[in-house]
Amino acid sequence: MAAAEAGGDDARCVRLSAERAQALLADVDTLLFDCDGVLWRGETAVPGAPEALKALRARGKRLGFITNNSSKTRQAYAEKLRRLGFGGPAGSGAGLEVFGTAYCTALYLRQRLAGAPAPKAYVLGGEALKAELEAVGVACVGVGPEPLQGEGPRAWLDAPLEPDVRAVVVGFDPHFSYMKLTKAVRYLQQPGCLLVGTNMDNRLPLENGRFIAGTGCLVRAVEMASQRQADIIGKPSRFIFDCVSQEYGINPERTVMVGDRLDTDILLGVTCGLKTILTLTGVSTLGDVKSNQESDCMSKKTVVPDFYVDSIADFLPALQG
Amino acid sequence: MAAAEAGGDDARCVRLSAERAQALLADVDTLLFDCDGVLWRGETAVPGAPEALKALRARGKRLGFITNNSSKTRQAYAEKLRRLGFGGPAGSGAGLEVFGTAYCTALYLRQRLAGAPAPKAYVLGGEALKAELEAVGVACVGVGPEPLQGEGPRAWLDAPLEPDVRAVVVGFDPHFSYMKLTKAVRYLQQPGCLLVGTNMDNRLPLENGRFIAGTGCLVRAVEMASQRQADIIGKPSRFIFDCVSQEYGINPERTVMVGDRLDTDILLGVTCGLKTILTLTGVSTLGDVKSNQESDCMSKKTVVPDFYVDSIADFLPALQG
Repeated sequence: MAAAEAGGDDARCVRLSAERAQALLADVDTLLFDCDGVLWRGETAVPGAPEALKALRARGKRLGFITNNSSKTRQAYAEKLRRLGFGGPAGSGAGLEVFGTAYCTALYLRQRLAGAPAPKAYVLGGEALKAELEAVGVACVGVGPEPLQGEGPRAWLDAPLEPDVRAVVVGFDPHFSYMKLTKAVRYLQQPGCLLVGTNMDNRLPLENGRFIAGTGCLVRAVEMASQRQADIIGKPSRFIFDCVSQEYGINPERTVMVGDRLDTDILLGVTCGLKTILTLTGVSTLGDVKSNQESDCMSKKTVVPDFYVDSIADFLPALQG
Repeated sequence: MAAAEAGGDDARCVRLSAERAQALLADVDTLLFDCDGVLWRGETAVPGAPEALKALRARGKRLGFITNNSSKTRQAYAEKLRRLGFGGPAGSGAGLEVFGTAYCTALYLRQRLAGAPAPKAYVLGGEALKAELEAVGVACVGVGPEPLQGEGPRAWLDAPLEPDVRAVVVGFDPHFSYMKLTKAVRYLQQPGCLLVGTNMDNRLPLENGRFIAGTGCLVRAVEMASQRQADIIGKPSRFIFDCVSQEYGINPERTVMVGDRLDTDILLGVTCGLKTILTLTGVSTLGDVKSNQESDCMSKKTVVPDFYVDSIADFLPALQG
């Protein structure tokens, strides 16, 4: 990192010193944060992170939270932010800072199914995804367990389908089953049926290095069986940023994306022309950055953050100065 | 196809006329057949196919049946072959002509787990796969339904695992579930645990253009969540041919692979140096062949059969002559 530390026009991934943070913040109106691995791990806030966010709010910065997790509504995220001390609006404004894939998938479907008399989706996902879709008028079928019905392939293919399903939505679904995969593929054979994936994360990290299989595994299974490519809502797809941009009226040059993953958060920031900060409290390491910098593959070489911090608590000295 | 029809050293994918079939059969000892789409569709034999196979047997040709389907034992395939009129050994020799992925996966595990005191596998698959594994001494756990247990990710990760599981085997599993995916990934985090997929077919075709999701969709989900690459047993992996070769003592130059899919059957034949015949009663078309021939990608350009037939009944005139 020595060359990068020295600065210069091509400097990338420099440590965000208090001085650099002050200069950066002077040029910035909006900070967008990934949540897990950046603000918290499971139910534990990253030390100093709540104070950093409160100080940013006190400076008049606008905050947004961009998460690929489709298993919580905007409201549920807003409650968690307040519960762990990150503040944010309560009451009728609760959740307006949160751009999760459940909510953004609902915006996408509202847009793509506009004009459909009674939009309906087959949803591989949980109650939160269903709630966000229904809030924009998309009826949901399929949520919950769906074990194998009938004996053998012909019986599986003869199981009744709901009429007028216009989209298959694949989110995080702990009730994912072969029967659901079979139904999803049958809906997707109907003309005009959309395939939408909330995100392509391969894993959902928990505390202590533990993880469970991510939504991407389920999307890939549906894609492979249906021979279709899903429209992906979450990072690094720019659709999720377009949602923020539309509601916030964002100027990308005066916006920072803060995240712990190069392949989602930082890639999104680079794609959308934002300033980018990698925080080392989550998935990606400086070794991963170096590997991207040294890659001979342009699609990797460009995925390098402008700055890095050990933790977003590193903002504090600049804000207290 | 005009140029190819004209023959010559570089001729590929020429129609197998009776004359060419006679010349070919004179140079061949063994014919290997894919089953579905070649010999039959579902429970219906391809017209003339049983007679063609009987005539080949009468000429003293050795026959072998190579199928990626992991949901039947060798014995079950042998019964189906006889039921639909294809003949073949009964009694103690039944199934010896059949190389299905359930059986070949068992051979692979026997080889890879040799020396393990009590080899055990976590099996995403059905009773046939379990029967073939147990026949070579590999104990199987996990076969059958496995719905979600407990509330939330921590509970799912705390569900008990069987001790001493040395391999995760992914075959065709209509009881595939998120809970099984979670367990598979946990076993795969244990040092030395193998990941084996019976095959990578994206779809399992039924009659009338209907299909269900294939084993490949399930293997991909496990690969993506575990960030591992599975050892694949079925076509086009050459392991399945090695099984045949070992039991039959095959001379590749005097062996023909007959199949309906370029990406599995013909690719296997090309990879293993066999003569290849595409039959048009199944998945791939002459248009697919042309597209491969005209591809600028070498890995496609070489996947072209030596000959094609409308149906394997086209062997009959050469055999009756």
